[in-house]
Amino acid sequence: MDQTKVLTIKQSVFADNDRQADQLRERLKKEGVFLLNLMSSPGAGKTTVLTRTINLMKAKWRIGVMEADIDSQVDADTIAGTGVKVIQLHTGGMCHLDADMTAQGLAGLGCDELDLVILENVGNLVCPAEFDTGAIKNAMILSVPEGDDKPLKYPLMFSICDVLLINKMDVSPYFNFNLDRCIERVRAINPNITIIPVSAISGEGIERFADWLTESVTAWR
Amino acid sequence: MDQTKVLTIKQSVFADNDRQADQLRERLKKEGVFLLNLMSSPGAGKTTVLTRTINLMKAKWRIGVMEADIDSQVDADTIAGTGVKVIQLHTGGMCHLDADMTAQGLAGLGCDELDLVILENVGNLVCPAEFDTGAIKNAMILSVPEGDDKPLKYPLMFSICDVLLINKMDVSPYFNFNLDRCIERVRAINPNITIIPVSAISGEGIERFADWLTESVTAWR
Repeated sequence: MDQTKVLTIKQSVFADNDRQADQLRERLKKEGVFLLNLMSSPGAGKTTVLTRTINLMKAKWRIGVMEADIDSQVDADTIAGTGVKVIQLHTGGMCHLDADMTAQGLAGLGCDELDLVILENVGNLVCPAEFDTGAIKNAMILSVPEGDDKPLKYPLMFSICDVLLINKMDVSPYFNFNLDRCIERVRAINPNITIIPVSAISGEGIERFADWLTESVTAWR
Repeated sequence: MDQTKVLTIKQSVFADNDRQADQLRERLKKEGVFLLNLMSSPGAGKTTVLTRTINLMKAKWRIGVMEADIDSQVDADTIAGTGVKVIQLHTGGMCHLDADMTAQGLAGLGCDELDLVILENVGNLVCPAEFDTGAIKNAMILSVPEGDDKPLKYPLMFSICDVLLINKMDVSPYFNFNLDRCIERVRAINPNITIIPVSAISGEGIERFADWLTESVTAWR
């Protein structure tokens, strides 16, 4: 897997990130590339969920993935196994991606022949919520072992996402996680969010997420 | 639990955080207060591990706890159940605490009659690693469900800690987590770190952590 492309992105010099993000969205619209920004805590299962979802969607859509991490290329190597186009982004220690960093990643990946690009943001429930990446939709994963109190502690992240995947449902018997209470807490912050319980291990809910993503891309084009 | 004290701390104005941190450590030495900075991802089990540890140590040491979060006071309420002094710090959206913010928290908590203060930092594996809080020792928790690849992705956090607790060992049969491989990856970054597998549910390893903390406080006084 030595051929995985790794790009170290530079910190942005732009003061107005919201403007950069709007410009990136306009450009993506012209190019017909749908960008999904996927966020979560470290270890919530972004890469595993993504692998399953890509395998359901890759026959129909031309998919690219940007894996952002402080270090390593383990996630890009995993995604490469699905056969889609992938790039590993190193953030130079930065805790999030903004619109300019995302644009650097897209340039590194090359979007000419892609319909859908998924950005796997740095594992972090705080900082990525504060920076518009220019994505068309924001997705987040909360995993059962993290606990159902996370919406109370990280409300901004839950408020800015269009879809929430509650992952690792297969291990819920071993954790004190109340799904109804969690959903209630999320809806109090973001009444319109789509919530899908999933398991990247058993496959539960992945088809529903792939359907949501397909509908989102189709509606946007 | 309405009486839990909540303090919103202000962003620091000091350019040289390392100097502020050294000054805070000097002050703590004079006052005989040992400060431990406890870090992890969201939901790794900081509060539950802390509750168990405090219950083992509170007969011998006068303990205070600062719970830092973006929002809510659920963790401070939990710690209040142990009977030790506690304050909830709200970071105003900030993803970490630096030395000045820590000093604000200590002033809010009041350390006059305390031997040991534990700062539960914001749940985040990136930013808190970059800011010296002025603590005497740094501790981190990695939980089994997060995966054994985290040292590869967040090396700075693992490099700055004196002790690593690997939590949720009770659910390790349900996850693809290789303890030996994880320890090997951590030691490659930080050969001198103390590593203790624990379970806040079963109690495994908690006494060993309490012993480590007791020895650290005793050696420092």
